Amino acid sequence: MKAAVLKKTGEISELMQNLSVKEVPEPEISSSDVIVSLNYSALNHRDIWITKGLYPKIDLPVIPGSDGCGTIVEKGSSVTEFNLGDSVIINPCLDWGFRQTHQSKKMSILGMPVNGTFAEYVKINKANVFMKPSSLTSLEAAAIPLCGLTAYRALFNRADLKNGENVLITGIGGGVASLAMIFAIAHGAAVYVTSGNDEKIELAKQLGAVGGANYNNPDWDKEILKLANNDIQVIVDGTGGKIFNKLVDIINYGGRIASYGATLGNPDKFALNKIFWKQITISGATLGSPSDFMNMVLFFELNKIKPVIDEVYDLQMIHQAMFRMNNGEQFGKIVIKNME
Amino acid sequence: MKAAVLKKTGEISELMQNLSVKEVPEPEISSSDVIVSLNYSALNHRDIWITKGLYPKIDLPVIPGSDGCGTIVEKGSSVTEFNLGDSVIINPCLDWGFRQTHQSKKMSILGMPVNGTFAEYVKINKANVFMKPSSLTSLEAAAIPLCGLTAYRALFNRADLKNGENVLITGIGGGVASLAMIFAIAHGAAVYVTSGNDEKIELAKQLGAVGGANYNNPDWDKEILKLANNDIQVIVDGTGGKIFNKLVDIINYGGRIASYGATLGNPDKFALNKIFWKQITISGATLGSPSDFMNMVLFFELNKIKPVIDEVYDLQMIHQAMFRMNNGEQFGKIVIKNME
Repeated sequence: MKAAVLKKTGEISELMQNLSVKEVPEPEISSSDVIVSLNYSALNHRDIWITKGLYPKIDLPVIPGSDGCGTIVEKGSSVTEFNLGDSVIINPCLDWGFRQTHQSKKMSILGMPVNGTFAEYVKINKANVFMKPSSLTSLEAAAIPLCGLTAYRALFNRADLKNGENVLITGIGGGVASLAMIFAIAHGAAVYVTSGNDEKIELAKQLGAVGGANYNNPDWDKEILKLANNDIQVIVDGTGGKIFNKLVDIINYGGRIASYGATLGNPDKFALNKIFWKQITISGATLGSPSDFMNMVLFFELNKIKPVIDEVYDLQMIHQAMFRMNNGEQFGKIVIKNME
Repeated sequence: MKAAVLKKTGEISELMQNLSVKEVPEPEISSSDVIVSLNYSALNHRDIWITKGLYPKIDLPVIPGSDGCGTIVEKGSSVTEFNLGDSVIINPCLDWGFRQTHQSKKMSILGMPVNGTFAEYVKINKANVFMKPSSLTSLEAAAIPLCGLTAYRALFNRADLKNGENVLITGIGGGVASLAMIFAIAHGAAVYVTSGNDEKIELAKQLGAVGGANYNNPDWDKEILKLANNDIQVIVDGTGGKIFNKLVDIINYGGRIASYGATLGNPDKFALNKIFWKQITISGATLGSPSDFMNMVLFFELNKIKPVIDEVYDLQMIHQAMFRMNNGEQFGKIVIKNME
């Protein structure tokens, strides 16, 4: 089969040499696995970080890729839940474990160390396979797994967003942020956004956000507070760093901040006095449980919502797709077409 | 009436001059107030900080004191809920507001700016008066209001402690910490403690704690983890500072940290990457709602538990009581006997 194989990590400028699309043997299954013939997959920041070696325990060569949607073409002897030909999406969070509160130490993500979805076929345990919601095309369904899972858990399980609340979602171009925005709007929240790019803020408003501020403006926090009438009750953040300190100032008394990442690194201080005096809750979130995944898929179906698709690239053009993500040019998900 | 009046703030060495027990006019009530003849009151760190001027908006002269228990001797025309002679305790959290999640901007605490309980009589709105639980003596009941409210909210409303969980309570000598320990043990949790004083750790174990570590030992965190079999699920902390960074390391995946103060100041860094990866929740807590207060009083009654009483001083000896607290010598509450 055709697959994108990473044989070496390095700078993004070396990506053409390190990652190549070539013929590899098809995966073999055990009794509880299925083989999915992938129509589409999608990029995550994780994939870029892996190509750069910015991830613990990198095991090469590997086929990266966590998101995918396709058709079951082979199944193991114990797989009674699915039929050949079923359209399915993949939950890339492997071995989460049995607690809703947190992952087991064995948890890993599809696409390193286990071969992932940037290929014509992927092998996956039946426990990580879910029927594609009928309300989504294969292309759309491929765009939701990893970011949808993270966004759903952060927003609903961790920040406990309620209908009617004001929520700030930072870095709105990103996959998790854009899905969190879609979810929050569908849930009846008023959404405010930040970005370093005015066009992304405009796009967010077209998609239903109330307003936003460009964090290159030093007064972005005052802008957000003015827009939201000084009442930001929930924040979903993946940036961290010095932004995080401002979030603690922005959020209203009794507010909840869900943090799912720190692309700007850890904050260099922490205003604990504001945390207790303002009765703030900070909830860390990463990925999600099988229950979160199931609820996330159901949320798409019940609310008839769609993920934001940025661009679609053929598997052969995966390097261009990765360059686009590396430059932060996208709004929403960058999708890969796996089959001709 | 006799009352301790603070006329000037300053160093603890100037306390004898700044705070004096003397005759002052009795308080006058409006229609929704009652006058409580106080049998006992109790000290809080807040009282010391106020005498030192380490509190915003200090308004002098004032009678400090937040905790108190006594008998209703006069009531306003609209007070139908109580009878003269009722034994009552006082909720010192004034004007909390109408939300369980956080206080209103108008919230204040009895004992500055409003005259407090270090007096023979105190005037208080009927909304802040509760029947003394029959399971507690007046002396014991006077020891629970402010610290009990804070401990109850932090432990149950914010950290959501469950029966059977392992909870670490830092700085175990303090009023909030010692009540949090009593509550947690009654709730069926396994309690671990820290202190800078081995005797306090021993006392905590006599009261039912499983074990503890002295934080003057640089490996106190390893000691706690060993005692708790690497599974601290809940932490209640009022210290902050560099201790807080270690708490983020100590707590297990999916754990909850309730922070009700920062006597060591704010932490100089914040490992946000551990917060999201370990799915940690940090909940800020200060004081509590009227509902928290009511539940706290009920919790004492249902569980037949007692606060830890350190020492009892006559009102005339309030300076000695404050010196003891200022030196951190106490374990549990320092109580003042208001009436001869």
